[in-house]
Amino acid sequence: MLRIGVLRFVALPRSSSFFFSTSSPKFLNPPTIRAKFASHSRTMAYTTSSGSSSKLLFRQLFEKESSTYTYLLADVSHPDKPALLIDPVDKTVDRDILLVKELGLKLIYAMNTHVHADHVTGTGLIKTKLPGVKSVISKVSKSKADLLIESGDKIYFGDLFLEVRATPGHTLGCVTYVTGDGPDQPQPRMAFTGDAVLIRGCGRTDFQGGSSQQLYKSVHSQIFTLPKDTRIYPAHDYKGFTVSTVGEEMLYNPRLTKDEEEFQSIMENLKLAYPKMIDIAVPANMVCGLQDLSERPAEPVAN
Amino acid sequence: MLRIGVLRFVALPRSSSFFFSTSSPKFLNPPTIRAKFASHSRTMAYTTSSGSSSKLLFRQLFEKESSTYTYLLADVSHPDKPALLIDPVDKTVDRDILLVKELGLKLIYAMNTHVHADHVTGTGLIKTKLPGVKSVISKVSKSKADLLIESGDKIYFGDLFLEVRATPGHTLGCVTYVTGDGPDQPQPRMAFTGDAVLIRGCGRTDFQGGSSQQLYKSVHSQIFTLPKDTRIYPAHDYKGFTVSTVGEEMLYNPRLTKDEEEFQSIMENLKLAYPKMIDIAVPANMVCGLQDLSERPAEPVAN
Repeated sequence: MLRIGVLRFVALPRSSSFFFSTSSPKFLNPPTIRAKFASHSRTMAYTTSSGSSSKLLFRQLFEKESSTYTYLLADVSHPDKPALLIDPVDKTVDRDILLVKELGLKLIYAMNTHVHADHVTGTGLIKTKLPGVKSVISKVSKSKADLLIESGDKIYFGDLFLEVRATPGHTLGCVTYVTGDGPDQPQPRMAFTGDAVLIRGCGRTDFQGGSSQQLYKSVHSQIFTLPKDTRIYPAHDYKGFTVSTVGEEMLYNPRLTKDEEEFQSIMENLKLAYPKMIDIAVPANMVCGLQDLSERPAEPVAN
Repeated sequence: MLRIGVLRFVALPRSSSFFFSTSSPKFLNPPTIRAKFASHSRTMAYTTSSGSSSKLLFRQLFEKESSTYTYLLADVSHPDKPALLIDPVDKTVDRDILLVKELGLKLIYAMNTHVHADHVTGTGLIKTKLPGVKSVISKVSKSKADLLIESGDKIYFGDLFLEVRATPGHTLGCVTYVTGDGPDQPQPRMAFTGDAVLIRGCGRTDFQGGSSQQLYKSVHSQIFTLPKDTRIYPAHDYKGFTVSTVGEEMLYNPRLTKDEEEFQSIMENLKLAYPKMIDIAVPANMVCGLQDLSERPAEPVAN
């Protein structure tokens, strides 16, 4: 059976009917783990053989109009080949679903790093075409989705997982998904930064609860503290770059290498035009990109 | 000193002053190797430690207007971090050179898979900005460049190398560059196919000495014979894909999975428009993309 789940360290009684582990030091503190979708012990993820890179199937996909990157990740060592998509775009959903099928993957999550203002997310459309898929976004975003995740959550696909790091500043609900830390997880690590860190740039901070002060703090505390060889995969690139590293951005990011005061001054003086898609995209993206989902009650599974 | 060089199996007398090896079975048949730019034994590339993926720095770069991918490869385990660019575009040369500098690399080659008809190559421009760089293209293309390579040649950058495979059909002079086969070379292998194999497609065959019959033969004999997990990195993509594999294209390429007769019929009935850039790009690309190089004699170094 497919092992999928969002893990969160919450105080539950030890008699909880949810997944419970005492064997992995990673999960001992706090002492109890709840995994709504876990069908059996998560600790297996830490006892299988090393060489995790061969487990991960990874594809970077581009949507030209909004210069958005969508990421496909799957654990191909798992019999079900469970997969997830990060930041799918409505216009390229058919491409993405065909690729998932051709590669023999089972898509389980369609995730967003944040409520995008420049394109309509593909998560809702994917759910209509592949009904088993769960949409995922941060609880702080106040959007509707099947799974509302929070900082510290672990999102499993097979034996691999993404760690959720809250990185507000571009929007209030921005998160960065980081591949797991452990011998069975991909090395170097990979950070899907959304618009928090772009390659040699960062997302604007003048809409959707944005705050340059908060973005600076998020990046320096949650992303620039990762190993320097961590790959940075942003939600967008406008110059044709596909990837960077934490080390590179710490040296060459023209904004985020500045001190906080100068960063704030840069961000306050960008004089950017009003985002042309924001009035269409944001309301749609608050409900997985499908307006007709707006009447459905939210299903905050993991909290 | 930087070890760079193009190797070719040619019959030279054993007293040749060029590099000579009897110690590596890879190089024993034919018995002698000439390496114009090799400063010392190539066999070292086969005696260093395993774990080659950590040696290779790899970047995929995109030029939006012509949907061209440029590839940066470097051996970062070598003190000089020698690097090469495959299919640079004139419009993005400054971006590429800045990246090379920021990453602390020493660019030694600016290479083309073929004479492009849809954009002007950046190789000539790169040479004016970084005079030590050698331009590289196939001899069969009849273009001017510093190094005119042929099928079977090995292009070294540090201890890593690319193998040249002639893959005519889109143009007469098309080659595919494939990362080396060996314990110290990147695994899985990577094939830079130019326009021979595109992701779920292939280049047109109605200009520049193109031949659908030849393209079919090239792909099936030179690319589809590589290990199935070999990564395919094409010169272009128009749908937002960044990479495929040999196995995937053998299963899902809508043209190249057909038999030869059907493939030829497909290619003869594409009814494509005349390439809008061909009359500018091809004459420019015959001379590294810089017209003012046209008076300079060719320097066919390695033959």
